[in-house]
Parts: sequence; structure tokens; C-alpha cells
Amino acid sequence: VDVSGGGEFAAIERIRRRLPPPPPGELWIGDDAAILGPVGSRVLFAADAVVEGVHADLSLVTLADFGWKAVAVNVSDIAAMGGRPTAAVITIAGPPATDLDTLYGGIAEAAAAWEVAIVGGDLTTARELLVSVAILGDGSGDPPPVTRSGASAGDDIWVTGPLGASSAGLRRLRAGQPDDARAYGRPMARLAEGRAAREAGVTAMIDASDGLTIDLGRLLDAAGIGAALDEVPIAPGATAEEALGGGEDYELIFTAPPAAAGAVSEGVGRAGRLPIRIGRCVSGPAAIVLAGRELPRRGWEHPWG
Amino acid sequence: VDVSGGGEFAAIERIRRRLPPPPPGELWIGDDAAILGPVGSRVLFAADAVVEGVHADLSLVTLADFGWKAVAVNVSDIAAMGGRPTAAVITIAGPPATDLDTLYGGIAEAAAAWEVAIVGGDLTTARELLVSVAILGDGSGDPPPVTRSGASAGDDIWVTGPLGASSAGLRRLRAGQPDDARAYGRPMARLAEGRAAREAGVTAMIDASDGLTIDLGRLLDAAGIGAALDEVPIAPGATAEEALGGGEDYELIFTAPPAAAGAVSEGVGRAGRLPIRIGRCVSGPAAIVLAGRELPRRGWEHPWG
Repeated sequence: VDVSGGGEFAAIERIRRRLPPPPPGELWIGDDAAILGPVGSRVLFAADAVVEGVHADLSLVTLADFGWKAVAVNVSDIAAMGGRPTAAVITIAGPPATDLDTLYGGIAEAAAAWEVAIVGGDLTTARELLVSVAILGDGSGDPPPVTRSGASAGDDIWVTGPLGASSAGLRRLRAGQPDDARAYGRPMARLAEGRAAREAGVTAMIDASDGLTIDLGRLLDAAGIGAALDEVPIAPGATAEEALGGGEDYELIFTAPPAAAGAVSEGVGRAGRLPIRIGRCVSGPAAIVLAGRELPRRGWEHPWG
Repeated sequence: VDVSGGGEFAAIERIRRRLPPPPPGELWIGDDAAILGPVGSRVLFAADAVVEGVHADLSLVTLADFGWKAVAVNVSDIAAMGGRPTAAVITIAGPPATDLDTLYGGIAEAAAAWEVAIVGGDLTTARELLVSVAILGDGSGDPPPVTRSGASAGDDIWVTGPLGASSAGLRRLRAGQPDDARAYGRPMARLAEGRAAREAGVTAMIDASDGLTIDLGRLLDAAGIGAALDEVPIAPGATAEEALGGGEDYELIFTAPPAAAGAVSEGVGRAGRLPIRIGRCVSGPAAIVLAGRELPRRGWEHPWG
């Protein structure tokens, strides 16, 4: 999907313009999570939904996987701010015959894995199955939560791991092969890595939920800069195209000054996955260049008009 | 729908049992909103979704009405705790051709009417239109937020207004007649009344979103008591059946000791609508009796298995 025209991003921008702006110190629409409240007790607030047939093919993954994913993508939004998830409300809309116990089994597993309290929600009938989650996070402490807009020319660009695993997994499942990595069925949020990145002083962060070029592009757009990439790490079994635009990987993309490279590598690596430096922010237009070639921004974008 | 068997309520109870319980002082699944955090800074957190064809017939109301309703039903959840709504995230799932500007027009109108900040959300494709909202509220101050479980035998039972207006409005619209009251298309949350009720010392409160007998029944179940009703105030143009079980009225039902009747009537009436005393809580089984006859609990319940 080409993002230059209409689409989801333009629609969100239209929505933002018709609503009141936040007071100083708060951040509302346009990042992975909103930042609310007085600086001393910052609250993070985000929402994400998964829809049957759009975000998960229920002929390929279980209902428990579907429930897991609904929580994981929301934890990832808090991770991308460097926050700690605290509580979530879960709205399930779907056919009354849905096996709620299995679905909620996956929700409860993910909630336990990332220590999120499920404190309420709604249950309603609908023709297709949808799980809509809203999540709160603790954003208190220093440095402040990491937005997607703080990158500068000269900053290194990092990812928390190789990309394309989810798309490759989906391709394998569609071909009747097992997806041992379970990256499509059971994506992992990089929560510990996100907190460590914040503590290491990264300047901007976003999750790669819609694909590297789309999400890195958003980070660059927010700062009005470009990127020169040296490499794009490709997950085992994935293609270059899947790594660039597959989406749903939930690795974190972040930027940091070169002087912080040691702290970033050590801090994030000790928290979980060893981060990979993939390039550098450059001044100029918000283009992403790899080996002298500008990459098209391709990935997952809902075709909203 | 008979609630004695399976259904939504039983499904929620099964969900509650598979999740960890809240720490002392917090209230999670099972009330209009969750109560989180330290007593001094109580946060209310709730979610509710509206689905095309289930909660609103888009051949009878506008997309702006649909957006309004999605916000109103969530504000009503905070109203039913006696809280003040602060921020909401809005997830819209629907066909890409949906007129987002009109839909968001209604969302923005309701958000402005009740002073809720729209701080984020998600936009995703789905075959049918659904708006899922999660809302935060301020529950700080004394007395604490009002749960649905604090009623005692001897307490008066009050409602903030006559019932059945939404069902009557839907019936008129289906018959091709205008619904001048707009109770179906533009329901009002009784926010000021809920806060005034809390300040006046009411003992339990719930909104009548699923119908008087269903929701009063939940309040009685939570306290293990019954109700003897003197009257059920019927909205202009509504039938007795619509008043008893129509649902979607979003009037508040609350209980208070007879000694507080003056404060309740004056406080709530000054805040907005003059409340109506409809009966009294009685010890014994959780039956609702009107003029010597036990009322069946009928109303809106999703047929979850």
C-alpha cells in the first residue's frame, strides 16, 4: 500500500485535526501510546484491535493464539514508549458460538506473561470475531517515555531483532508447513528491551507492527529527516521483501546518538535481545536509502479512505 | 432473554474466574468500571463497544449518532460510579468506505459534551462497523466511587428518570415516525446526576443500559437482597414493557437509606434530572416484586454460550 495518498494514516491525521489538542506536557493521538497526566505520574494509554481474517487467519492459528495476539500488540505499544503495562480492558465482539474459554485462555496467558491485569471489558455479538484491547501503562520516572519524534540526523538506527518472521510464518502455514518460530501465531512484545532502551537514552522509538519501511518512515517523518541503512537483518527463513515490509513483527525500531551505542547495545542486550544497528539518520528528505537505492514504503496499511 | 441459564453474564463470570483477583482496595471485572490505584488517586477504567445492527440500526440513525452513542455508553459507565470521565481511546473497525468524518463528528460532539479527551485509538478494516471505546475516569475524593454491591434491605431504590424512551424511539423509527426525543439515536449519559448521587451518599449504583429488571437485578444479586417496587415511571410514548425491559436508556438506578432521601432528591435534582423513588430494597431472595407480582428479568443480554 502506498501511503502517499489517502489510507489509514491520512484518516488518522484528519481525525486528529477535528479534536482538541493536548495540554502542554501531554501527548495524545499519533504515537504508540498517549502520555497523560502530571509529569511525576505519567500514564500511558493505548488501544489496538485484532480482527478475524485481517490480523489472524483462524484456519491457520488457534483461538488461543488470537487472544494472545490481541494482548501482545497492545503490550508492544507500551513497550515502544519504554513503559510498563499495568491494566487492560478487553472487548470481545463475535458470534455467540465463539469458544470464549479457549480465546480467553490465550488472553490470560499473555496477560500473565507480561504482568498486565485484565480489569474489565465488554462482550457483544457481532458477525465476525474482533478483540479490542485498551491498555494502561506506567510511564513515570526518568528519562521520560520515548516518543517517535525525537530522532536527529546523525543518530544510529537500531532494531531489536531480524525482521520478516511473522510474514514468513504465515507463508509457511499457508503452504501447510509448520511455523516452529510461532512468530505469526504468538508474536512477542519486546517489553524488557523497550524499557532498557529508554533507560539507555534512546531518542525515538516505534514498534515495527506495520513493517520496517512504514514504521521507520513514520519515525523519520516525525523528525523531518531521512535514513541511510547499511543492512536489514532478515529473520531465518524470511525473504528480503518480508523483512522490509512484512509487518506484525513487533520488533522495536529506535534511534540513539552514536555516543550511546555501547550503553544501548549492552543495556538492551542484557534485558533480552541483542539489538542490531541497521543504519543512521541523515538530514534531508524523509527517504529510506539502502545501498544507494531508495526503498518504497510498503507494508501493512488499512485502506481507509 | 432469560439470564438464569448461560448467556453473557455467565460468560463474564467464567472469564473472571480464570483471571487473577484484584489486590485489596481495587475492583476489577464485574462493575460498570474498574477502580484502580491507590485510594488517594483512584482511577476508573471501563470499555464498551457499539456494533452496527446490534446496538444501532444504521438505516434508522446517522453515522454521527452511532459515534455519539459509542462515547455516551462509556461516559455512562463512569457516571454509574459517580466519577468524572477524563480520557478515552477509540477503536474503529469497519469497511474502508465508511464515512469516517461523519462518524467522528458524532464522537467529537459527545466528547466535547462530556469533556472527555480523545487521546488515541486504532483504525482497522472489518466487514461490519464497530466502535470500541475505552474510557478513564477520575474517582478520587470522598465518598469513594459507588459500586453496584453496596445496597442494604431498607434502602430506597431510585432512578434518574422514566424508562423505555430508547425502545419507544426505536419502535417509532421502525414505523417511519420521527423520534423527537432522540433517546435511541442520541442517548444521554447522566453524568452530573451520578456525581451528585455519589456526593449525596447513595449506597449502590448501576446504569440501566440493559433494562430496569436486568440491571436492578444485578444490583440486588450483588447484595443478596430483593426489591419491592411501588411504580415504574414510563417515558412519554413508551409502553410498560419497554420501561421494564427495553434497555439502552442509560438512566441511573441507585439505592440510598431513607434518611438520605432529602439529600438525594435535592442534590441529584439540582445537578440535572429530579430522581424518582420507585421502591425499596427488602431482605430475602433477589426477586423484583411490583404490586405483588414478581417481574421476570427481561432485557438486553447477548446470547453468549
